[in-house]
Amino acid sequence: MTYPRYTALAQTLPASVPFVGPEAQERARGARFDARLGANENGFGPAPAVLEAIKAHAHEAWMYGEPESYELRSAIADHHGAARENIVVGEGIDGLLGYVVRLVVGAGDAVVTSDGAYPTFNYHVAGFGGVLHKVPYKGDFEDPDALLAKAREVDAKLVYLSNPDNPMGTYISAKAIEAMIEGLPAGCLLILDEAYVEFAPQDAIPDIAIDHPAVIRMRTFSKGYGLAGMRVGYAMGAPELILAFEKIRNHFGMNRIAQIAALAALKDQAGLDAIKASVAEAKRRIAQIAAQNGLMHLPSATNFVAIDCGGDDAFARRVLGELIARGIFVRMPFVAPQSRCIRVSCGPEVELQRFEQALPEALKAARSV
Amino acid sequence: MTYPRYTALAQTLPASVPFVGPEAQERARGARFDARLGANENGFGPAPAVLEAIKAHAHEAWMYGEPESYELRSAIADHHGAARENIVVGEGIDGLLGYVVRLVVGAGDAVVTSDGAYPTFNYHVAGFGGVLHKVPYKGDFEDPDALLAKAREVDAKLVYLSNPDNPMGTYISAKAIEAMIEGLPAGCLLILDEAYVEFAPQDAIPDIAIDHPAVIRMRTFSKGYGLAGMRVGYAMGAPELILAFEKIRNHFGMNRIAQIAALAALKDQAGLDAIKASVAEAKRRIAQIAAQNGLMHLPSATNFVAIDCGGDDAFARRVLGELIARGIFVRMPFVAPQSRCIRVSCGPEVELQRFEQALPEALKAARSV
Repeated sequence: MTYPRYTALAQTLPASVPFVGPEAQERARGARFDARLGANENGFGPAPAVLEAIKAHAHEAWMYGEPESYELRSAIADHHGAARENIVVGEGIDGLLGYVVRLVVGAGDAVVTSDGAYPTFNYHVAGFGGVLHKVPYKGDFEDPDALLAKAREVDAKLVYLSNPDNPMGTYISAKAIEAMIEGLPAGCLLILDEAYVEFAPQDAIPDIAIDHPAVIRMRTFSKGYGLAGMRVGYAMGAPELILAFEKIRNHFGMNRIAQIAALAALKDQAGLDAIKASVAEAKRRIAQIAAQNGLMHLPSATNFVAIDCGGDDAFARRVLGELIARGIFVRMPFVAPQSRCIRVSCGPEVELQRFEQALPEALKAARSV
Repeated sequence: MTYPRYTALAQTLPASVPFVGPEAQERARGARFDARLGANENGFGPAPAVLEAIKAHAHEAWMYGEPESYELRSAIADHHGAARENIVVGEGIDGLLGYVVRLVVGAGDAVVTSDGAYPTFNYHVAGFGGVLHKVPYKGDFEDPDALLAKAREVDAKLVYLSNPDNPMGTYISAKAIEAMIEGLPAGCLLILDEAYVEFAPQDAIPDIAIDHPAVIRMRTFSKGYGLAGMRVGYAMGAPELILAFEKIRNHFGMNRIAQIAALAALKDQAGLDAIKASVAEAKRRIAQIAAQNGLMHLPSATNFVAIDCGGDDAFARRVLGELIARGIFVRMPFVAPQSRCIRVSCGPEVELQRFEQALPEALKAARSV
C-alpha cells in the first residue's frame, strides 16, 4: 500500500512550482546574479525607519505573532477609512489568494482569469480542484469585458484581475473597473489584486464601497513598501467575507517581526514617497536603456517595465537567456503576444547600469542565432 | 444571493480560533501581562548569534524568501544525517500540519488523535472535512495502544501524536514509539510532532528510518531555538511524501529573515545548549514554586511544567483566572482529568518571580470561592 493515502485531488496534482526562484537559477549557473531585477521586488526598500524597527524588535522573535494582527489591522483600517472588520492580514497576497480560493472553490467549480496573469492564483485554483477558464489580453491590457463574458458563460464563482497588471505593467481605468463590478454576474466574486497600487496613478484606483459583497481587494507590503521577504499582505472586503477567513486561516501564521515591520512601514508614508520617487526614476532609466537599444517599452503603472524586444516569443526568450547568462535576472510574460517582451523590475542604479551594459550584448547574441 | 458562494464545507465551518492570543487577553483586561508564561514560547531565546544575524540581514527584507529553502534544508539534512529530499521547510509546524492534512484528508476521512492534544491539528482536520476520533490519555500520558486501536477501528488515514507531549510535558519512550510504528495499520500515516524534542531526554527520541513511509516527523525552531515569532518548522520523511508538499504548499510563503535566523540558530548549537540550560533551571524553579505552595508538578520533557492544582477542573480554572487577573499569562489543559493542572512555560527569572508572588494569592482566592 502507498503511504499516505492521498486525497483523490492530491493524487492528480503535479509537484509544480509557480515560479523558479532566482537562487535556483544561480545554483544552476554556478554564479550569483549581478542584478536582481526579475521578481518585481523593490530593491530600494524598505524605508530606513522600517529597518530600524526590525532591528529594534528583533529580540521579540521568541514571541508568536499576534494572531489577530490587531494593531496592524487597526492601522490599515485607519489608513483606508475602513473598519478593522473589513481587513484580514495574511502571509502575503499569495497566502490570502490561497485562503479565498479554499473558501470558495471546490471540485469542478469555475474560475476565470486572464491568460498569462498571475500563476500563483492558478496554482491555488488547481490545488483546490477548480476549473480555470482563461481569456486573452486585449493588446497589452487585461480585458474586463472578456472576463465578464467568460464569467457569465461558465457561471464562475471567482474572477481574478490584477490592476495594475502584472506582467505588462498596464492598468485599466478606475471607471472601467467600477463598470466591471456593476456587470458581475450574480454570485461571482471579483478578486482585485492591487499589489502594485502604490505605483499607480489615481485614475487606476477604483472607488468601491468597502462593504461591497462582490469584491475583495488585495494589497501587500511586498512592492511599494519593499518588504517582499516579510510576507505581509491584506485583503479588504465586506465583514462577512473577511470573517470567513477565520474559519480556515493559519491563525498563528504571521511572523511577529513582519507585523512590526509592516506597521512601521505603513506609518512612514514619507518613506513610501521616497521609495516611489526612486522607483519612478528607475522606470525612466529602464525606458532610456530600452530606447538606447532601439526598443519600445510599455508605460508602467507598477515597479517594473515591459520592454518589447521587437521580435516574437522565441526572440524574447533568447534575449532573456542571454541576459541571465550575463548575470542579469529578469523574467518575461508567459504567453504570446505579450511574451515578445521582457519584464525588468526597478532597482538601484548600480544594477540598472549592469543591465544597461548587458542588454546590447544580449540583443546582439540573440540576433546572431 | 450571498457572496461569495462558499464551498459546502466552508459553510459548515465555524469562524473559530484554536487559541486566543495573550494580546487579546491583554486588550480584554486593559493591561499588559507582567509574565508571559502561557504559550510555551521560549523567553530565553533566540541565541545572541541569531539576533545578530537578524539585524545584519534586515536590509534583505526586500527580497522574497528562497522558495526551496535550499540552504536551510541542506543544513537541516546535514544535522540529521538525512538528504535534502527528506526535508520540507514550512511556516511553523502549524503550517506543515495544515499541508499534510490537506494532502491526505478529504470529506469524511478518519483521523485519530488524543483528547486534549493539539487544537490546531484538530482545526486543520475539521477545515478539510475530516472526522476526528479522540482517545483519552492514559493518566498524564498519551496512549499509543489506544491510538492504534482506534486507528484500526476507524481505518484512520492519519494519527497524530506529540512526543514529548503538550500540554502535559510527559513523554513516551523511544521504544514505545517504535513499537507503535510497527503496529500502525496499513495506509495509516503517523504524524509525530516533536516540537519539544530539544528539551527531551535521549530516551524520548525514537530511531526511525528517515525513509519510513508511514511516519512524518515535525520539528520547529519555535521552542528550543526560541524563534516562535519567526514561523519556521520542518518535516522529515520519505522523499515521495516530502515531494508531495510541492503540490500544494505556498512556495513563496517563507519569510526571508526567518530563513536566515533559523539557519543561524541551527549552526549555533552552543547557543542552543545555553538556552536549554536556562530552561532546565527555570523548570526547577517552577517545580520549587509549586512545592512552596504544597502542589505537585509533573516531570517535564519540554519547556513548560504542568502543576497539579490539587483539585478539579473548575478549581484549576479559578486558579488560572486569578493568575491572569494578577498579570500572569498561563494556560491549562483542555480536558479532565489533565485539566486539574495549569501549564506554566519557562521564562526568565524575573517573570518566574512574578509568578511566585502571584501563585499563593491566586490559590487563596480560588479556594475562597
